[in-house]
Amino acid sequence: MLKPSHRGEEMPSSPIRKLVPFAEEAKKRGTKVHHLNIGQPDIETPPSVLDAVRNAEVKILAYSHSAGNASYRNKLVKYYEKAGIELNADQMIITTGGSEAIVFGMMTCLDAGDEIIIPEPFYANYNGFAVMSGIKIVPVTSRIENGFALPPISDLEKCITPKTKAILICNPNNPTGYLYSKSEMLQLEDICLKYNLFLFSDEAYREFCYDGVFTSAMQLDRIQEQVILMDTISKRYSACGARIGAFITKNKAVYDAAMKFAQARLSPPGLAQILGEAAVDLPDEYFNAPKAAYLSRRNLLVKRLNSMPGVFCPTPGGAFYVIARLPIDDGDRFCQWLLESFSFNNQTVMMAPASGFYETRGLGKNEVRLAYVINNEEIDQAMDCLQEALKVYPGKTN
Amino acid sequence: MLKPSHRGEEMPSSPIRKLVPFAEEAKKRGTKVHHLNIGQPDIETPPSVLDAVRNAEVKILAYSHSAGNASYRNKLVKYYEKAGIELNADQMIITTGGSEAIVFGMMTCLDAGDEIIIPEPFYANYNGFAVMSGIKIVPVTSRIENGFALPPISDLEKCITPKTKAILICNPNNPTGYLYSKSEMLQLEDICLKYNLFLFSDEAYREFCYDGVFTSAMQLDRIQEQVILMDTISKRYSACGARIGAFITKNKAVYDAAMKFAQARLSPPGLAQILGEAAVDLPDEYFNAPKAAYLSRRNLLVKRLNSMPGVFCPTPGGAFYVIARLPIDDGDRFCQWLLESFSFNNQTVMMAPASGFYETRGLGKNEVRLAYVINNEEIDQAMDCLQEALKVYPGKTN
Repeated sequence: MLKPSHRGEEMPSSPIRKLVPFAEEAKKRGTKVHHLNIGQPDIETPPSVLDAVRNAEVKILAYSHSAGNASYRNKLVKYYEKAGIELNADQMIITTGGSEAIVFGMMTCLDAGDEIIIPEPFYANYNGFAVMSGIKIVPVTSRIENGFALPPISDLEKCITPKTKAILICNPNNPTGYLYSKSEMLQLEDICLKYNLFLFSDEAYREFCYDGVFTSAMQLDRIQEQVILMDTISKRYSACGARIGAFITKNKAVYDAAMKFAQARLSPPGLAQILGEAAVDLPDEYFNAPKAAYLSRRNLLVKRLNSMPGVFCPTPGGAFYVIARLPIDDGDRFCQWLLESFSFNNQTVMMAPASGFYETRGLGKNEVRLAYVINNEEIDQAMDCLQEALKVYPGKTN
Repeated sequence: MLKPSHRGEEMPSSPIRKLVPFAEEAKKRGTKVHHLNIGQPDIETPPSVLDAVRNAEVKILAYSHSAGNASYRNKLVKYYEKAGIELNADQMIITTGGSEAIVFGMMTCLDAGDEIIIPEPFYANYNGFAVMSGIKIVPVTSRIENGFALPPISDLEKCITPKTKAILICNPNNPTGYLYSKSEMLQLEDICLKYNLFLFSDEAYREFCYDGVFTSAMQLDRIQEQVILMDTISKRYSACGARIGAFITKNKAVYDAAMKFAQARLSPPGLAQILGEAAVDLPDEYFNAPKAAYLSRRNLLVKRLNSMPGVFCPTPGGAFYVIARLPIDDGDRFCQWLLESFSFNNQTVMMAPASGFYETRGLGKNEVRLAYVINNEEIDQAMDCLQEALKVYPGKTN
């Protein structure tokens, strides 16, 4: 039988999805599974943006401009203006989710064999996009003791080789929830300037900042032509399934090159562009309710976690994730055990082992990522489960 | 200023889109431009499939399964069954357009540096996907004198090296409209069997066959695990902007590898999957009207072209394209001149120079591709323009 390519073999599986069969088994046994494992918000997609699709007058669902509809990009100019980011419509390419924006960035700015520095733990799918692009991810470790702050800039500097082309950050961060400070952003600007590197900034969670002030990479004045902004409406408007994102750059040569990748795949999804455009028209107050919900959940979740013996969870400033250190031998084993062998009040909890977010082997072994995309009542129930589980888990370490 | 990667520089521009600025200028001057240049059908998207999206009860537009909704894949099993192709739902991955299916195929089955043989002229975006995948396209020339039939199998055989991993066909063909015969498909089966190659089959135009019988690569019994079927609903239901396609294989190892690429980008567009699923429910008679329209247009277009002195256009069996040989020095120059310097009754015609579809330099210089995606009246007007243009074009060769 013909085999897949080495690239196909090398392509990593999703560390989040590998527990799915165990969750399905648990559900079959009648156990309620609290899903803290994936970043699929439970917040409703705003009805008005779905209505915009319903009411759109479409006779022929034709290819759009490869950069996305001009009307949408023009509206996005205003969205970014409100967010303190000055852009014009010809600096954006509407993409199929944030995923495609990341692929466009890697493909357009790096050649096969080039290196990109990413603070770990990081969003696991960056690995897959790096395999697709043939580039090498060089991790710099951020530490739970520091709340996953930017590692010392000297650590980043040590990783720079002649093959280094870019630094990638996710801000606020998935999986840590960390919100980079202005001062950290300025340090990143310095190092990108000094070594002439691209700064890739994945700002999927921009609207969900609870403490401190968000600084976009696009606001770094001295590296305006070195920044690639990767964006998505998935979390912002709870529209993950739409698959609409944006690749943004003020570097004309990079933009022109990225447009060739965009033209090859013809156009981003048409119906979802209508939704995205309508979302820009939502009133500013739209974000108040989801933000308040996430903030309240974060506070509850962090409090519950830190009240358990041996558990440590820093309080992150944004997104809707936390990483917690648990008194356990191995997060993969523990998360599987929770689904396979444990229940409390006929309930259990599904979390993502943090090891899958670290590039360096062995790190994150006693950490898990939790996404607070369930309501407070469910969070309480899930934490009751976790608390009981930690009392009886055979691989408990203290 | 930081520059794009070599890959970004090397990425080809769309040969079809480069004339767009000249067309825009012509329109500004008040000239009507007949668009025979791109494969964007003028046929309406079936209202019922758009209604399915309008009436869908969506509260949270969530990520779907990375392979696409199971309900959609199950329905597609029935669609393919009617088309004489036996599949199950776990052999399909719903993709973002046919484009993504092609990328998945190249990435999953070939490594960087590997070779794929493609009969030329071929769909120009294969070049872009090959650059993304780092693979090398090896062209085998099909000739207008033979109506762009499959080149002699000995020509393909001569191109095979230890790096050859696959042969790619588009059937019926874009840009030639050629429909491969059963006998040609069996020859392809033989050679793939003999050299243990993948057969990639882009069947975007499956439903539009006018003469002869369509044979899917999936019907080749002896290479069931070597075939990768790349499909799309773009042309089938005149829904190019939906961005829904499919990657299909019976090779379990290849499927599993492709699923990792699918998981990295999370899911295909959600709203458009609803549309795609509804399209499978259209009555069998749905295709009668568009097929009849395309057939009538093809007959008119080919007749008009062949009635012009020095013009030769074979009659293709499928899709909605023809390639014509014109008595001209250079198709690129001619097509630009038509937009820049010519009009007849205040009209002109936009076509795609065929050179962009050939990999071998210098081939197709006096050929153009025409897409019959405008009605007969407009085709007549466009051909009136072309006929007059050929009388006065300064680069006329006979």
